[in-house]
Amino acid sequence: MSSKPAIGFCGLGAMGMGMATHLVKQGYPVTGFDVYPPSLNKFESAGGTPSSSLSASAKDKSFYIVMVASAMQAQPALFDEEGIVKALPKGATLILCSTVPSAYVKSVEKELVDMGRDDVFFIDAPVSGGAGRAADGTLSIMAGASSAAMEKGKWLLEEMSAPKKLFIVEGGIGAGSNMKMVHQVLAAIQILSLNEAYGFAARLGLNGKDVYDTVLGSKGWSWMFENRSQRTLKEDYFPGASAVTIILKDTSIITSMSRSVGFPATLCSVAEQVYFSALDRGWGANDDAGLVRLWTPEPVAKIESKLSAEDKEAKFQLVVNLLTGIHLVSAAESISLAKHVGIPLPQFYDLACDAAGGSTMFKEAGERMISILEGKEDGKGRVLGGYIETLKEAVSEAQAIKCPLYLGTGALNLLLQTGSGLSLAALLSCYMP
Amino acid sequence: MSSKPAIGFCGLGAMGMGMATHLVKQGYPVTGFDVYPPSLNKFESAGGTPSSSLSASAKDKSFYIVMVASAMQAQPALFDEEGIVKALPKGATLILCSTVPSAYVKSVEKELVDMGRDDVFFIDAPVSGGAGRAADGTLSIMAGASSAAMEKGKWLLEEMSAPKKLFIVEGGIGAGSNMKMVHQVLAAIQILSLNEAYGFAARLGLNGKDVYDTVLGSKGWSWMFENRSQRTLKEDYFPGASAVTIILKDTSIITSMSRSVGFPATLCSVAEQVYFSALDRGWGANDDAGLVRLWTPEPVAKIESKLSAEDKEAKFQLVVNLLTGIHLVSAAESISLAKHVGIPLPQFYDLACDAAGGSTMFKEAGERMISILEGKEDGKGRVLGGYIETLKEAVSEAQAIKCPLYLGTGALNLLLQTGSGLSLAALLSCYMP
Repeated sequence: MSSKPAIGFCGLGAMGMGMATHLVKQGYPVTGFDVYPPSLNKFESAGGTPSSSLSASAKDKSFYIVMVASAMQAQPALFDEEGIVKALPKGATLILCSTVPSAYVKSVEKELVDMGRDDVFFIDAPVSGGAGRAADGTLSIMAGASSAAMEKGKWLLEEMSAPKKLFIVEGGIGAGSNMKMVHQVLAAIQILSLNEAYGFAARLGLNGKDVYDTVLGSKGWSWMFENRSQRTLKEDYFPGASAVTIILKDTSIITSMSRSVGFPATLCSVAEQVYFSALDRGWGANDDAGLVRLWTPEPVAKIESKLSAEDKEAKFQLVVNLLTGIHLVSAAESISLAKHVGIPLPQFYDLACDAAGGSTMFKEAGERMISILEGKEDGKGRVLGGYIETLKEAVSEAQAIKCPLYLGTGALNLLLQTGSGLSLAALLSCYMP
Repeated sequence: MSSKPAIGFCGLGAMGMGMATHLVKQGYPVTGFDVYPPSLNKFESAGGTPSSSLSASAKDKSFYIVMVASAMQAQPALFDEEGIVKALPKGATLILCSTVPSAYVKSVEKELVDMGRDDVFFIDAPVSGGAGRAADGTLSIMAGASSAAMEKGKWLLEEMSAPKKLFIVEGGIGAGSNMKMVHQVLAAIQILSLNEAYGFAARLGLNGKDVYDTVLGSKGWSWMFENRSQRTLKEDYFPGASAVTIILKDTSIITSMSRSVGFPATLCSVAEQVYFSALDRGWGANDDAGLVRLWTPEPVAKIESKLSAEDKEAKFQLVVNLLTGIHLVSAAESISLAKHVGIPLPQFYDLACDAAGGSTMFKEAGERMISILEGKEDGKGRVLGGYIETLKEAVSEAQAIKCPLYLGTGALNLLLQTGSGLSLAALLSCYMP
């Protein structure tokens, strides 16, 4: 028998399977539950103990991790008569890693108390980093909990996260989910922006691989662009690695939370409507890198560009301009929402710069935006003029070729709202009226 | 021979045919030109004189009307070697009724001078009202010109317009086109809003005819809703009466002009991207009332609603909320742009209330918006709260059923930008930073 504590695990999807099998490799006896039998078989082959009953997976487990897809899945798994919580031993540590609304994790905390299970040490700990980092135990984890619960569960969060990638967020239960939410503002926008950029480029007559090479070293870079390009350039969408429904779920958490607190999540809302339109086309289960098909049916890596070298150069620049302008505004939208919901801004900056929401523009402009929102500088410098002009060039060209730029035009109109001030402070004031 | 002066006419499309044949009925000898032979035949049957040459249609005509589709068509028609201007007699009056950018009509004025034809009395006179009113001679006409030119041509504009529907706009050449442009802000948004409303209603399980009856007497009414419903409810889209490409052309005039003057035409830009996406589906030549197919392939008038009376009532209200919220913001967008380009606001209000851009919300809120922009009241009253809450209800429900609301979410985010102020002044400041 292992000297390491036994762990229960619910939700063996792409992320959960990686996390659970990583713990197995580290020598923990892990009992895993999933509703999908092939996942249980796969988990058993990887050395885990499969369980076909939720309560059996939780019985006698002092540590339990939930990694299902949504609050709608988590609620019955946790609280049904034959669910996890009823089966957990006294004083167990329960970690919810799913991306859910912060209001939901607060409701879990309350329900534990209401049912007389406040002995359970509950941790709100959504993750970021994708299936590869899940399997390597190098995730970014955003955790909120009471200090007592954190003391109990921190070692386990450390097992699953990379060094310096465990972000313990002040504010208790809900703070982890809020941190994840504001991070996903960047993800929600930047997953669409890369598709919009490849789509615009295709309609300008540019080859996708050339676009990839150009964007990588430019101000238009984002983690999502680099990551998703691996699938965009191979049309690896069926199913690929991250379905449209997943980013849509996170996007809807952002926009509904924003509505309820009166925050204008402008570009996230644009992205959400486009994701809905992709569902309507039947693309929900396809990889989100396949949204480029909204612009062109042609494989972007196979486009033979007939442009002159000079023309190409000019058009590459337009694509970079588009991404740069969108990412400048996505930085403002995420940082403003972080401020609005009380997330510590420097911690958010540290996390996002080096996570899936990262972008060159976030890194460059985000620090100054935070400094402005913290009152350390007035932010009245007229720094936006250049970005507005270059984004205008992209939008004008798209208009001439009748190419929709949902985010590009949305970002431009927010930038134009800064009027003659052209300042970061004016841009932030679109979000913090 | 008629005692009335001979008139030349170029462009016998849906609008132009109505205008030219109306003049024929009034007893004018009209010589009409079109590139499409069947239109010439039709015009001849209606008593007009067809001409297969532009220069022949202009020779000896002291009055000439151009009603082609775009600046791109107008330019060669006017200025080619065998075009209109070269053939016009000295001192002729030339009226351009097409909807074109104001910069274009200014370039025509300049080109007339440059080629030594400043003897031509040129009038910038776009129209509104649709093919029916064109044929009745009851159009709304927005005209700008020098006072000398206006003196020459006013009688002819009066022939084509309804009593009190000839709006002579101060500012000379360009002012008529600018007035038309700001009017089309309402049209561009409200053509999409009616489709979004019918689409949302369909996905809520409501029958289109019931929606029509409900909206007609509600705050969600618009002229466009009432007008286009006649085709929506019969799927009369092929080709219907007004192609997507027509409103798209006008929308692109608005957004490109706005970009060039630094105005954030936020909802018009949203509409433009959706119109582009309709082109991508091959719907450019279909009636714009057919855009509802972006939401549902089902004929909306044939939806059998299975909802209880109470449920229906609640869902009708959501549809009305959606339209009301969008039209409130479209009023702000159009009036702010009017102010930005120097259009007299009370004249714009008079025109738009009773033209194709009219809506209940424009009529109700527009007057106060103008009063605020003219400095007659401060506009700090917290009047927006109710509209924000009701629009939120619509957007929340749409999110729950995964129904895209491009304009609804765009309008809500602009309203949320008013923060805790909740005032019309704060809404207008999104447009007039």
